[in-house]
Amino acid sequence: MRFILPEIRELIASRKKRTIRKVISYFEPADIAETWPELTPEERLTLFNSLDTKFAADIFEFLDDKFKLELLKVLSPEKKKAILNEMSPDDRTDFFALLPKEEVEDLIPLLEEGEQVKARELLAYKKNTAGGLMTTDYITVPENITIGQVLKIVRTKAKDIDFIQNIYVVDKVNRLKGIIPLKDLLTTSPNRKVDRVMNKHFVSVNLDMDQEEVSKVFEKYDEVSLPVLDTLGRMKGVITADDVLDVIEEEATEDIFRFGASEAPEQYMSASAFSIAKKRVIWLIILSLAGFISGTILEYYSFLFSNLVTLSFFIPILMNTSGSAGTQAATFVVRGLATGEIKLADLWRVVRKEFLIGILTGIIAGFITALRAFILQGDIMLGFTVAVAMIVAIVIATSLGGILPIVFKKLGVDPALMSGPLITTILDSTTLLIYFNITMILLWRL
Amino acid sequence: MRFILPEIRELIASRKKRTIRKVISYFEPADIAETWPELTPEERLTLFNSLDTKFAADIFEFLDDKFKLELLKVLSPEKKKAILNEMSPDDRTDFFALLPKEEVEDLIPLLEEGEQVKARELLAYKKNTAGGLMTTDYITVPENITIGQVLKIVRTKAKDIDFIQNIYVVDKVNRLKGIIPLKDLLTTSPNRKVDRVMNKHFVSVNLDMDQEEVSKVFEKYDEVSLPVLDTLGRMKGVITADDVLDVIEEEATEDIFRFGASEAPEQYMSASAFSIAKKRVIWLIILSLAGFISGTILEYYSFLFSNLVTLSFFIPILMNTSGSAGTQAATFVVRGLATGEIKLADLWRVVRKEFLIGILTGIIAGFITALRAFILQGDIMLGFTVAVAMIVAIVIATSLGGILPIVFKKLGVDPALMSGPLITTILDSTTLLIYFNITMILLWRL
Repeated sequence: MRFILPEIRELIASRKKRTIRKVISYFEPADIAETWPELTPEERLTLFNSLDTKFAADIFEFLDDKFKLELLKVLSPEKKKAILNEMSPDDRTDFFALLPKEEVEDLIPLLEEGEQVKARELLAYKKNTAGGLMTTDYITVPENITIGQVLKIVRTKAKDIDFIQNIYVVDKVNRLKGIIPLKDLLTTSPNRKVDRVMNKHFVSVNLDMDQEEVSKVFEKYDEVSLPVLDTLGRMKGVITADDVLDVIEEEATEDIFRFGASEAPEQYMSASAFSIAKKRVIWLIILSLAGFISGTILEYYSFLFSNLVTLSFFIPILMNTSGSAGTQAATFVVRGLATGEIKLADLWRVVRKEFLIGILTGIIAGFITALRAFILQGDIMLGFTVAVAMIVAIVIATSLGGILPIVFKKLGVDPALMSGPLITTILDSTTLLIYFNITMILLWRL
Repeated sequence: MRFILPEIRELIASRKKRTIRKVISYFEPADIAETWPELTPEERLTLFNSLDTKFAADIFEFLDDKFKLELLKVLSPEKKKAILNEMSPDDRTDFFALLPKEEVEDLIPLLEEGEQVKARELLAYKKNTAGGLMTTDYITVPENITIGQVLKIVRTKAKDIDFIQNIYVVDKVNRLKGIIPLKDLLTTSPNRKVDRVMNKHFVSVNLDMDQEEVSKVFEKYDEVSLPVLDTLGRMKGVITADDVLDVIEEEATEDIFRFGASEAPEQYMSASAFSIAKKRVIWLIILSLAGFISGTILEYYSFLFSNLVTLSFFIPILMNTSGSAGTQAATFVVRGLATGEIKLADLWRVVRKEFLIGILTGIIAGFITALRAFILQGDIMLGFTVAVAMIVAIVIATSLGGILPIVFKKLGVDPALMSGPLITTILDSTTLLIYFNITMILLWRL
């Protein structure tokens, strides 16, 4: 959408507020927000001040955090007040979460009374729970009225709400009793009573449910929006599927980076090399310290290959193949745990499966390595030794790759921390031990 | 939801169709579908035949593919016909895609006439495009009618459609002209003309857009549903965010497995060890063949450490740390390419960044390794040599980890194929070459 940039700059340069407002309204707020980094601070302010409140608030919600903070500093008190009142409660809460507590306390009084209560309530929930994801923009109706009366309520409230899929029916203490899809309001006779029409069986999520759990509920039931209830079953908010899209993307990104032995960065292209290096170096230090163990093993058994230097030629291939086999197994299990396909109780079934997979793939990799030893070194016994070592090393690799993420999860540690590089580092040591011991048993007996 | 199983079994055993129908309707279709694997084939059929068509079709849509195929074989022709007509067009298309062409040709005539056309059209689209994701259940209205007339149309059609967010306004040749949110129908005067009320600026996706692109549009614009248009702007279907949830999960899973050097499995727990081994072994063979290169390098330079065996003790730590550094860099770049943050044109900016990161992290890892060499071997010159080798190896590792995924993408290959194990294997060779050459320059000059 970069092509709209020259058009927008020219428009801003004209300084005709009314023209700017009109032309900009043809664009999507998300597209305007995307041009933000390319505009100068003055251009941003002129543009923002030209827009009507609704459209300005829409754009504001799509801006990167740093631009939101920039605007907050330069906007007039009236504009600030208007924007904050117009924002949807969930996006406003995310914005407040960026600010120091005192600043939020200064801003909340700018909100209308009803919004103040909502804002304080939403701020109390943890960011990555259902409470932190939900919006408080929804419509509730009592059980004992007619559909005609519901229609009246909806007509007065619908304007201020972006997305309405369902009307929520609550009892006197706000417990959710049923759901009426908005479309059913159109097809049902206005004289019918709400409690005869409403759907009494519905899926909901708990206020303190982790966002990853929430996304699984959405995926399982194929829902577009879900009500959020507290432990007493009282209606607290609504989560829509578009918010869950971001959660799934976020969680997948986090897993991928952990598995790649790093913390996920906020940004890559705009971050400094120094800040990215900081995110990686701790892992690198841990891994290189762990790597000393394999060096020590090598040192301890060095008498073996100072006698037969050929033995050392197979060290890289053994370490590399077992590391890859272990990474493969860990990938399957880490992902299976993340999607919920593998449960903690499955530990032994996973071990059995990975053990078998290790034998199957180990035999093939062992055969290839034996062939190389035979062809290049012409030594049948060496080939046999290397092949046996390869099979055992791969069986250990797939088994550990399967076990360790589950053990991590049992210990309450994120299984994705059992990353590719970490499992590879661990397997380097086991592989060397296996190789040298098998060599001593098989070759030294000759 | 396993706790509902005994209840359901007892219910089925009673063989009272009416009771079964009533009790089951209290559950969510997704929960009933989840008990399916635990039931016997007879139980499944009894249960399914007891339900009314709407609920049975809902459950059918949530079943695993193999159970869908099982039911297809045993259902009576009438029941089969009823279910197929009741299913939502997009789920039905996914189901048809499981069957051989001839069988689909036998099933399509069972559909009502209007549904037959829809079914054939949807079958023509590729599974992982917008056309393959969309449903044809939506409501269009002409431009020149009133809101009152729209309400009448909606009242007759809304019953058959699960989810309606918007009413789509089209011209005579079915080109999408505007969108009216369903909620606006309730708050707008019935006398107003459609073309004065509709929102003329809307986001849409193209019929042949890849599903990954589609999910990015949803994420960017925070939408709950989007219209699908062909190249002439004609209305073809609607995609809802719940379908996109699955896409994001699927694409992330695919990336994670590729990066773990394997193809993503359909299932893990229920798949045989043999079938999983098959998914992994090809990569393992490729990696172990590539691993021979490092073996050959080791062989070529073996005179170095047959003179000074201490040199070999540092091979695992060097290979391991550079492999980890390369995996970290590749993780950042593969993920950045997937989310769209990194573009092909950014190649040189990425290289520069990774080069710098390599120097920063390399110096720290090099220092640690030098310390070990000095403390355990008491050899300052060896420590210096190993440290220099570590720094150079890590700089090469991060740079290659950054470059190779972008090069893969430029060549039209999935960058995630530049997996952790593959980059590690490549770096094993470069690290050995660096180490031995630096040793020859620095140590041999002594």
